[in-house]
Amino acid sequence: MGRKFWLETLGYVRSELKKRKNAPRQGYFGAPEAWVEILPGFEKCLHLVDAGQEVIVLTWLHQAKRNVMKVHPGRDKSNPLTGVFGTRSPDRPNPVGLHRVKILERDGLRLRVGPLEAIDGTPVVDMKPVLAKSSDS
Amino acid sequence: MGRKFWLETLGYVRSELKKRKNAPRQGYFGAPEAWVEILPGFEKCLHLVDAGQEVIVLTWLHQAKRNVMKVHPGRDKSNPLTGVFGTRSPDRPNPVGLHRVKILERDGLRLRVGPLEAIDGTPVVDMKPVLAKSSDS
Repeated sequence: MGRKFWLETLGYVRSELKKRKNAPRQGYFGAPEAWVEILPGFEKCLHLVDAGQEVIVLTWLHQAKRNVMKVHPGRDKSNPLTGVFGTRSPDRPNPVGLHRVKILERDGLRLRVGPLEAIDGTPVVDMKPVLAKSSDS
Repeated sequence: MGRKFWLETLGYVRSELKKRKNAPRQGYFGAPEAWVEILPGFEKCLHLVDAGQEVIVLTWLHQAKRNVMKVHPGRDKSNPLTGVFGTRSPDRPNPVGLHRVKILERDGLRLRVGPLEAIDGTPVVDMKPVLAKSSDS
């Protein structure tokens, strides 16, 4: 076994989506706007972060099953069982979620963002700008 | 303070890059090919993952300073101090690295990928396919 590392909760998602079973699989499948609330101890991490910027929000998918290593992609049993490294399943050994969103508004420690498929109460563990060069990750 | 979560090491980067100070800031800044070695306990996560696929490798940037909340972007002091949520600095409270790479070869538990700016010995904590729809995150 390898080493383990602590991830600290830096904030939370506040969303109208309350249950995982009702959440779209990805933001572009009709996910709503939501708020990302950063905890006061991490306010400095938001310095110069503002509306109009595109960011990747990293979350901890706290309802995921960590002992799942293969799934049928897209929750569709007609798709062959695939290793989770080849899918976006939230169920996986380290359930970190990646969510590309646009910041629509900043209100102090709160960012209104969209679209975001993460459910209400999902812990936020990082945020990074989308890179202009690669328009990705 | 919020809750904390364990990230488990699922594999390691094997690279000719040995020191952080010599590593490019992003893969597209001339980073080399490297190997991602998955630990035997997580072999099932790689089922149907193969050469030709584009993936986002998530790493734990083990040499990062976790108490840094603002940096000068691009290691350039002429850039204004910016919150780490607005930068790709490895120094940040939860130093998770995102690396978009192409799988060039699969040899059992080892994937040859490129370009990858992470240094030798960096723990791998997840891998996800690049989404066709958004070509990102």
